[in-house]
Amino acid sequence: MKLNKLIGDRFKERPADCVVDSHALMVRGGYIKGMANGIYSQYPVMKRIAKKIEEIIRREMDAIDGQEVLFPVVMPKELWEESGRFESIGKEMFRGKDRNGAEVVLGMTHEEAAVHLVREYGNTYAKYPFMIYQIQTKFRDEARPRAGLIRVREFTMKDAYSFHTSMEDLEAYYQVCFQAYNRIFKRTGAKGVISVQSDSGMMGGSISHEYMLLTPIGEDSLAVCSECDYRANMEAANSIFETEDTESPGTLEKTATPDCATIEDVCGYLKKDVKKSCKAVVYQTNEEDHYVVVFIRGDLECNETKLRNFLGKEIHPAVITDDSGIIAGYIGPVGITKNCTVLFDTSLLGIRNLVCGANETGYHYVNFNMERDLGDVRYYDLSKITEGGICPKCKKHTIEISRGIEIGNIFQLGTKYTDVMNMRYTDENGDLKTPIMGCYGIGIGRLAAAVCEASHDEYGPVWPISIAPWEVHICCLRADDETVKKTADDLYDHLQKEGVPVIYDDRTSVRPGVMFSDADLLGVPVRVIVSPKNSKENLCEIVTRDKKISKKVTVEETMKTVLDIINRLKEELEA
Amino acid sequence: MKLNKLIGDRFKERPADCVVDSHALMVRGGYIKGMANGIYSQYPVMKRIAKKIEEIIRREMDAIDGQEVLFPVVMPKELWEESGRFESIGKEMFRGKDRNGAEVVLGMTHEEAAVHLVREYGNTYAKYPFMIYQIQTKFRDEARPRAGLIRVREFTMKDAYSFHTSMEDLEAYYQVCFQAYNRIFKRTGAKGVISVQSDSGMMGGSISHEYMLLTPIGEDSLAVCSECDYRANMEAANSIFETEDTESPGTLEKTATPDCATIEDVCGYLKKDVKKSCKAVVYQTNEEDHYVVVFIRGDLECNETKLRNFLGKEIHPAVITDDSGIIAGYIGPVGITKNCTVLFDTSLLGIRNLVCGANETGYHYVNFNMERDLGDVRYYDLSKITEGGICPKCKKHTIEISRGIEIGNIFQLGTKYTDVMNMRYTDENGDLKTPIMGCYGIGIGRLAAAVCEASHDEYGPVWPISIAPWEVHICCLRADDETVKKTADDLYDHLQKEGVPVIYDDRTSVRPGVMFSDADLLGVPVRVIVSPKNSKENLCEIVTRDKKISKKVTVEETMKTVLDIINRLKEELEA
Repeated sequence: MKLNKLIGDRFKERPADCVVDSHALMVRGGYIKGMANGIYSQYPVMKRIAKKIEEIIRREMDAIDGQEVLFPVVMPKELWEESGRFESIGKEMFRGKDRNGAEVVLGMTHEEAAVHLVREYGNTYAKYPFMIYQIQTKFRDEARPRAGLIRVREFTMKDAYSFHTSMEDLEAYYQVCFQAYNRIFKRTGAKGVISVQSDSGMMGGSISHEYMLLTPIGEDSLAVCSECDYRANMEAANSIFETEDTESPGTLEKTATPDCATIEDVCGYLKKDVKKSCKAVVYQTNEEDHYVVVFIRGDLECNETKLRNFLGKEIHPAVITDDSGIIAGYIGPVGITKNCTVLFDTSLLGIRNLVCGANETGYHYVNFNMERDLGDVRYYDLSKITEGGICPKCKKHTIEISRGIEIGNIFQLGTKYTDVMNMRYTDENGDLKTPIMGCYGIGIGRLAAAVCEASHDEYGPVWPISIAPWEVHICCLRADDETVKKTADDLYDHLQKEGVPVIYDDRTSVRPGVMFSDADLLGVPVRVIVSPKNSKENLCEIVTRDKKISKKVTVEETMKTVLDIINRLKEELEA
Repeated sequence: MKLNKLIGDRFKERPADCVVDSHALMVRGGYIKGMANGIYSQYPVMKRIAKKIEEIIRREMDAIDGQEVLFPVVMPKELWEESGRFESIGKEMFRGKDRNGAEVVLGMTHEEAAVHLVREYGNTYAKYPFMIYQIQTKFRDEARPRAGLIRVREFTMKDAYSFHTSMEDLEAYYQVCFQAYNRIFKRTGAKGVISVQSDSGMMGGSISHEYMLLTPIGEDSLAVCSECDYRANMEAANSIFETEDTESPGTLEKTATPDCATIEDVCGYLKKDVKKSCKAVVYQTNEEDHYVVVFIRGDLECNETKLRNFLGKEIHPAVITDDSGIIAGYIGPVGITKNCTVLFDTSLLGIRNLVCGANETGYHYVNFNMERDLGDVRYYDLSKITEGGICPKCKKHTIEISRGIEIGNIFQLGTKYTDVMNMRYTDENGDLKTPIMGCYGIGIGRLAAAVCEASHDEYGPVWPISIAPWEVHICCLRADDETVKKTADDLYDHLQKEGVPVIYDDRTSVRPGVMFSDADLLGVPVRVIVSPKNSKENLCEIVTRDKKISKKVTVEETMKTVLDIINRLKEELEA
């Protein structure tokens, strides 16, 4: 198409409210326009990219026997009550009432709808396994939308649901899907995407992986081993400690620790290593306001996701009241009130002569020795893994903490939904069984933003050819020059006849600098520049957006050279 | 794909709650599953059809320089307040509150979003004309969803919005779009679709057309001329009367009309033709409850849409109170209370010696002559056109009333949205002007249902090849017979290699009758039957779903014959 007809404005200035580059470039390049907090319209450029991503995903989903369906955006409350999630999901789920006062929700995920659709179909083992997927609008009422298309409230998502008669079958299909996802990210040019073990969160289920694009602007913290292939979301990463403390146990002594606000202060005052202290972190359960005290090594932090999963309850940082019996700032394992649940993190195992609170204002103990002073203690993994921590897989001190954006996830859901929603099938022996589910998501817009984030320069995105809005961008400098115009026009016609998506800038009203900066913002992989100077020598200039190729070829060779480059770029992504 | 893997059940019994055939067949064929009133999930078969329809629409929209965009489903109240429609649209618009208490609506149409997206872009005349479109989920909280996909609450729609600098330009583009719509309906095989003039309703604007599939189950009444090309929604059809009453005016006389409940009773009692009576129809305005009395020829009905448009106000049938001054059953033009608005329909023009109410309980007038007894009277077109009425175009008494389903519409919106939403452009002279809009919609699911309605038999849909879920359906009777199976397998492989969408039924567990009834329900245009009997003679049987072709060809000729039929079927729709 002609660039002067392309709807959407491009401009130079970075908008003040854009914190991350992909957001700024997508606004500057006329890709998206914000309508409300976390809600965007897509201009034609963005829609073209989204459609190309969707086609790549469809191809891979179809290749692993997925069948495309469509679920509703608006769903009745009753369906979500079947799974219990109408109650259990918080404010992220949009709830409302229709004209008759019936309560409805907007789909933020579609496990319930998937079970609803195939509950009768999947009534015999012979139908299994099967997988359905959709590409549809979802709404999640995020508390803090941010970063353009990276964290929005309304978005297009591919979500897939597979159904199986055994865990082995689910696991086998999970691997198949895992590979399909790898191909999707390779084909969309999402470089630097890694898969990490993740916490299943509100989805339920046991094993799950997230696909993360590593980027400093990511919202998730990831534990990545530099030696082996261990990769996990920090929320899900097991913390391992190998403490060999050979110090002789000293005598438990209560010591005054005046004016010490933190465990660091206490240790500093007592001249002890913080790693030899036992810190208390206090939470309350959301429903009962019951206190939960986690004792953990002084230098570590509590992993709230692990605690939440362990308790099976939602929690929040405690508000410690005077009548709670808990002495804030001086909480210790010895003589703590019975009025709370006490948990010990594995980081404390084997450390001798700890500093800990004395449950008395102004006092701590020194030389606290867990088993000696408390008797049998059970330890649980409740701490956040740290940089330099032990890799749960290769057991070396090789954990690095990175940041990433989640662009896809796969979950082994088990029977969480099928069971409570009464989906059953008859097995070979005529017995009623409950099918096992997996689910698999990819956010389309977020994937585009993540690719932009991973592949851009200060002037604009550098789109991989597979998802670029066009494959070729013709800049005709001086379209008022007849020879120049004819060369560019011919190339444009030729490329269109070959079925190559091409955008053609033949504006006479703008200077070359504007043409080039517009081209940079559109990020089309192959650029052909037709100018009076080159035309005199019967040449065209071909430059790739990633600057790896920049050369002049004769007008006659241009078409072939462009097609060759396109094919090579495509092959690189398919290889 | 293999039929035994296709997700969705097929069955014989017509569901009790299905009133129209397309609904029943789509449920019986495993196309859709209801989740809530007017809300459906789509099984793979339906989704395949929808995608094919969408691609046909995209192709035509792109061909008339449309650029695909995406608007949000969830939109902020503020945007709809800009146009005034947050107030003016009733309960069909779903309203709710997000987690922060901000009011939002679900998009039922996207004029506001379209203006929002291009308000800055379209700031100079040089950018015009342009058109944007999307294919997206919409939600309309219909009071009475019915008939499967024909009247739903949630649906996928293609909606397009064009922007112009002059009415001439809009009208020219409107014609272009009109032709594109004709091509869309031709290509999707929606036979019997006609375009009719329509009332613009809540969309605003002046000229508009609806595309109607003529069918007895349609919800709209249409006035169609049997002689010329005049076609209009009854709501919008002008009523014309050519009354040449040569009777001599008699003397106005008040006459007792005891126990006459209706105008028919009155005329019967007085032995007068109902066509020589003047009936009163009474409404009240919604806001002020102000009475509006429409006098109309006794045999006709008031067209409430015309009245609404004339008044510019919403109305409802009146509740006549004792203190209103209106004497229900005896209302007439002479001496009627000043407490109401009185309107005369053009049907009364020129009729002499009318019967009419006397505004006195138990009495009517005879020999009422409008101008003689009232003085100057203005007449307005407020009646419903009738079967045998005068065609507004060719002026013959050739109007027929048909029923239709609306599957698309096009509106000349004018500046209704751009003006109040402050969209302006600079014209050639540097003056600020307001752009003129058109909008153009097609419901995807309703189009599919309408095609099914127009093209089915008692056994299932007869899908046009352009939107059929597959092009070929192979029935392998006795796949446990090696020769038969090999012939069918080879054909399946062959067709797939040729890129022909094919569904292959090689089940050994079902009888031929079930295979054929399943095939009928899927409605695939070309069926190939491979059976032991035919195989012995080295033959395959080829039958088209519409039964126009049924023949046996040799196994070797089968592939070529099938491809020929496919091409011919496609050509018929493109021609």
